[in-house]
Amino acid sequence: MISNLVSRIRASVAQALPAGDGAVVLAVSGGADSMCLADAALAMHGDTPAFVIAHLNHQLRGAESDGDAQFVQAFAAQRGVPCEVGNVDGVALAASRKVSIEVAARDARYAFLAEVATKHGATRVALAHHADDQAETVLLRLLRGTGPAGLRGMQPTSPMHNAPQLIAVRPLLRITRSEIEQYCRACKLDWRHDTSNDALHHTRNRVRHELLPLLAQYNPNIRATLTRLADTLASDYEIVESATREMFDRIAIEENHTVKVDRKAWRALGAGLQRAMLREAVRRLKGDVTQLSYAAIEEAREVLNSDAGAGEIALMTDVRIDVRWRAFSIYILDF
Amino acid sequence: MISNLVSRIRASVAQALPAGDGAVVLAVSGGADSMCLADAALAMHGDTPAFVIAHLNHQLRGAESDGDAQFVQAFAAQRGVPCEVGNVDGVALAASRKVSIEVAARDARYAFLAEVATKHGATRVALAHHADDQAETVLLRLLRGTGPAGLRGMQPTSPMHNAPQLIAVRPLLRITRSEIEQYCRACKLDWRHDTSNDALHHTRNRVRHELLPLLAQYNPNIRATLTRLADTLASDYEIVESATREMFDRIAIEENHTVKVDRKAWRALGAGLQRAMLREAVRRLKGDVTQLSYAAIEEAREVLNSDAGAGEIALMTDVRIDVRWRAFSIYILDF
Repeated sequence: MISNLVSRIRASVAQALPAGDGAVVLAVSGGADSMCLADAALAMHGDTPAFVIAHLNHQLRGAESDGDAQFVQAFAAQRGVPCEVGNVDGVALAASRKVSIEVAARDARYAFLAEVATKHGATRVALAHHADDQAETVLLRLLRGTGPAGLRGMQPTSPMHNAPQLIAVRPLLRITRSEIEQYCRACKLDWRHDTSNDALHHTRNRVRHELLPLLAQYNPNIRATLTRLADTLASDYEIVESATREMFDRIAIEENHTVKVDRKAWRALGAGLQRAMLREAVRRLKGDVTQLSYAAIEEAREVLNSDAGAGEIALMTDVRIDVRWRAFSIYILDF
Repeated sequence: MISNLVSRIRASVAQALPAGDGAVVLAVSGGADSMCLADAALAMHGDTPAFVIAHLNHQLRGAESDGDAQFVQAFAAQRGVPCEVGNVDGVALAASRKVSIEVAARDARYAFLAEVATKHGATRVALAHHADDQAETVLLRLLRGTGPAGLRGMQPTSPMHNAPQLIAVRPLLRITRSEIEQYCRACKLDWRHDTSNDALHHTRNRVRHELLPLLAQYNPNIRATLTRLADTLASDYEIVESATREMFDRIAIEENHTVKVDRKAWRALGAGLQRAMLREAVRRLKGDVTQLSYAAIEEAREVLNSDAGAGEIALMTDVRIDVRWRAFSIYILDF
């Protein structure tokens, strides 16, 4: 049973980290999840990528934090893998940047991972986020009011937000925390208290310790339910994306920082594709749509679907729609 | 401000209930929501459908229940609208059918509404479900683990589950309970304690009184967040549905109670369309997909995506997939 679990986790990690281009940075805090990730990665056979272990000491827990760093270094040495350890004063950093400790620690960690990747010619950074993290992320985003795109949760691979030329890979996204601990015990892997939890966001902490236990009274499998929801939304989203791109090519043109849309053709679409087309236009013009509000889309749709002949709509502070009878043009104010 | 609200609600109701074919049954418990619905419907001008008010006395609260029925009858008489009042013994019905009181009451109510519709040649039944109900429904379905289709919540129009030839219309789905009470006060409409809440499902009650208040600590607008999620999922779902139908026509054929799919073409699809195609096949063969599990779809996908040459997959207890190299056929065992 347990050895099945070990092979399953190792297979997931191997599949997520094919030899491919360049080395892979393994982000290792020393907690059970990242020890499992590192062990499974280093157990790969045949044509594997080169690995380098990276550990950032946030110095949030004094001697214990130093102990974590030494623990990770010893593990890397024993496995014969290069290891980079960085140091930041998490508290001082938070104070000087005027942000919370969790934000300062996370930003410093991602900056450090990108640095290590550059130094070692790595193109990918493997992160130990697991299914329990995913369930919390989905729930947090649900509470915050993100749409279907956000409810897909963390993706198995995604560009790193602070260094988009690097790919973040999350091979453990479908493995639960309890399976990870079983793995560590079965493989006689030691682990340290996970320091990244020290700087856990207050809300995530409440979600983990208050909300999820309450939801489990309604549905004992709530974590699995939430990760499955993320999965199905991700696969539906993929369909929506490709239908949107297809429609975009059919009824819109992008040129000179402007997206021009055939208004009559757009009006014939259902609400779903109408919304998706406006989002897609903003995505092409600005690169991301996180600041585009649902309410603004709905207001724009109301005007565009009405008989209003000519006018201007503010879709975002710096994005306007020039409305005409036959077409409307979406453009950025800067240009 | 309030009179804006009154016109907005009346406009929603008028838009949801165009003159169209046949009369409209207004389901009126006597609570604020159904009184608002009835008043707004009866305030319609011009070319309106004929209305008939229907009230079922579940006899769950003795004299008070009788009072509700008299209240609704008096309202109908005052407005000059035909009114049908039915009587059932909710407790006895639950005991004889061996179901909970809430299930017995709900089933009896829907059966009665269908009866009234038939008697009066009505094709539509207007129900007073509002935005707060919708938020609870979305949350309940989320907890239960329904996929994106279920998370769309209640639809503005849908076939009645017990009488699919009738359309259930929900004109108040975007109006909150508090707006409905404002409407009633502004229009000097009296209302009774909502008897349908007496037979409220235990879990819905807990969601309303325990879970939603807790979630509101994380996000004060949690109800609006949930109803907006339902809206966006509904519009994305519409895109998924139409992309699925299009792909179905391209790579599948339905004949003799069998859906035959070009396996190579299916394998070239993303996970989203692969899942959607299997669901669509079952929907065409069986009429609904509520019993089709996510796990069964994933197991079938694994086999169909593998190099397995020939074999059989049980997709449901009565649905099989006959797997061949070039194609696979989905069929119902009965046939």
